[in-house]
Amino acid sequence: MNNLILRTARGESTEAIPVWIMRQAGRYLPEFHTVRSKHEFLDVCKSPSLSAELTVQPYRRFAPQLDACIVFSDILTIPAAMGQTLTMVKGDGPKLFPRLESPSQIPDLILKPNVRESLGYVGDAIKESMKLVENAVPVIGFSGAPWTLFTYMVEGGGSRSWTDSRSWLYKHPEESRKILTAITDIIIEYLVMQIDSGAELLQVFDTNAGELPPAVYEEFIVPDLLRIADEVKSQRPHVSLICFPKDCTNLKPFNESAYDVISVSWKTDAAKARAELPSKVLQGNMDPAVMYAGDAVIRKTVHEMIARFGREKYIANLGHGMMPDMKPEMAQSFINAVKSA
Amino acid sequence: MNNLILRTARGESTEAIPVWIMRQAGRYLPEFHTVRSKHEFLDVCKSPSLSAELTVQPYRRFAPQLDACIVFSDILTIPAAMGQTLTMVKGDGPKLFPRLESPSQIPDLILKPNVRESLGYVGDAIKESMKLVENAVPVIGFSGAPWTLFTYMVEGGGSRSWTDSRSWLYKHPEESRKILTAITDIIIEYLVMQIDSGAELLQVFDTNAGELPPAVYEEFIVPDLLRIADEVKSQRPHVSLICFPKDCTNLKPFNESAYDVISVSWKTDAAKARAELPSKVLQGNMDPAVMYAGDAVIRKTVHEMIARFGREKYIANLGHGMMPDMKPEMAQSFINAVKSA
Repeated sequence: MNNLILRTARGESTEAIPVWIMRQAGRYLPEFHTVRSKHEFLDVCKSPSLSAELTVQPYRRFAPQLDACIVFSDILTIPAAMGQTLTMVKGDGPKLFPRLESPSQIPDLILKPNVRESLGYVGDAIKESMKLVENAVPVIGFSGAPWTLFTYMVEGGGSRSWTDSRSWLYKHPEESRKILTAITDIIIEYLVMQIDSGAELLQVFDTNAGELPPAVYEEFIVPDLLRIADEVKSQRPHVSLICFPKDCTNLKPFNESAYDVISVSWKTDAAKARAELPSKVLQGNMDPAVMYAGDAVIRKTVHEMIARFGREKYIANLGHGMMPDMKPEMAQSFINAVKSA
Repeated sequence: MNNLILRTARGESTEAIPVWIMRQAGRYLPEFHTVRSKHEFLDVCKSPSLSAELTVQPYRRFAPQLDACIVFSDILTIPAAMGQTLTMVKGDGPKLFPRLESPSQIPDLILKPNVRESLGYVGDAIKESMKLVENAVPVIGFSGAPWTLFTYMVEGGGSRSWTDSRSWLYKHPEESRKILTAITDIIIEYLVMQIDSGAELLQVFDTNAGELPPAVYEEFIVPDLLRIADEVKSQRPHVSLICFPKDCTNLKPFNESAYDVISVSWKTDAAKARAELPSKVLQGNMDPAVMYAGDAVIRKTVHEMIARFGREKYIANLGHGMMPDMKPEMAQSFINAVKSA
């Protein structure tokens, strides 16, 4: 197995910079649409063989330069396991129904689902993916983070301002705590289950980390994130964990955490991240919008990015995911640029 | 005249903390709808008497505690003066047509409009507002910032991700520079015209400052913002200028600028802003979502906010604007909390 990314994630000095791309298994690949056109979104997630097929598609295209697959799934599998109905609305993204409008709905939520029963399909998808890729590269597992999942549950999907989520927190701090704690417990079990299915590297996506006032985020949200890493690591010490507290302006609380890798978006300055996280491996962070500017601009930006982060303790990635209207050649340019740097 | 906010903006030590609220003249006020129901959005902006009526509405409600009015207008008046058609789509916000899809459209833009002719209505609205409020409080003038206006011109309105704007910058840096420079020149004339109409305090809104990589923002965008302050101040040294580089993660470049006041959103930590901007007056930054949590939570949050910023060199405000579904009582709670702190 090409275990470059695992060694780098553990903090080892490695012979090259590992690279993968968030949302590398997705709609920008024509072969993705070939599969998705025949199946509903959630059916794909729940079918280990279909999920594995999508997981491995980018590897087929970009091997041997791509250093990892990430299991094809969705962060909203957990709200679905908690009793909300997950659907994918074309052109408008994922929707959760009914959205969490008031604490009176908490009794309708499944706060302690049987994770292996209701989310076991993600573990099976990891196993199938590892078989399909013949263990050539690691298959990354993942979960949404408590706050980000909470925001989707409250808004019922994506939002431009996430105002309802923040006001929920301010209006109902105790009930919010109850839900966030329940989600945190589920995430811990969910990640351990993914590890037991073969994932050795897992990422926690806190995509909406940057939406809260920093003091509120640090007091109310960061402890959950730290607990996830502590508990997963104490149960399964051999794995590496990535945290992506997207656009969080103070990364210092993560420096003493049990996470091995901190992923940052293009809105976070590399030098600032290095200064605040001297103990950690960093991952990121090219602005995905650079992808549209063509090979020469991608190459120049990647080289500047590597100069900023340095070649040690570093995993190359975008600052967020691939977009549906991107072309596979853009991903190839990005990967080539990393490997030729 | 209650000139508390002017003295504070100049850096003087004052007897109280001045307060106003971004988007305080707006849809959350029932009396606003009484006027707007009879007139199109742009007609209101272009009518000095209607604009003045909306400008003064919050003062009537919240006097004598409110320390400023802000002229009722829109940041998109400049793209309209540059030749794009501005319409307000109910439930979907302002739209600009045709959106700027490629540099081939640059010849269709009016890069050097006659500002006093095409935007004089904003100056007239300031004069009318000052008469209507009987000079009891200052009337703040404002403009969108070059980058934020550019993003609206490219997207044709608001956006969730602003990806097209960023990729425009990466794909067409020279043409972007041309447009940004033209907008900057217009803003300087526009602000000077507002000053000559009576505004003594003016705010430049860079609402999308935080969307770019910090290095790109600092190299490509901040010089325009600094030039605006330099040129306006050299032409009209008696006024005070506020810059709102929303969610910009490095405020240091503004510390040596000609801006008197830097406004920050709830995503910016007060202590960090004070550390990076020791020479400046600060403005902000309560999370608008706190408004929904009721009087007691608003009061507690305002008191914490003031403790964080300190009472000197400080103008109380929200971290962004009032939302249409808010209630006037929420604004009153916020203002009361500042004045009783």
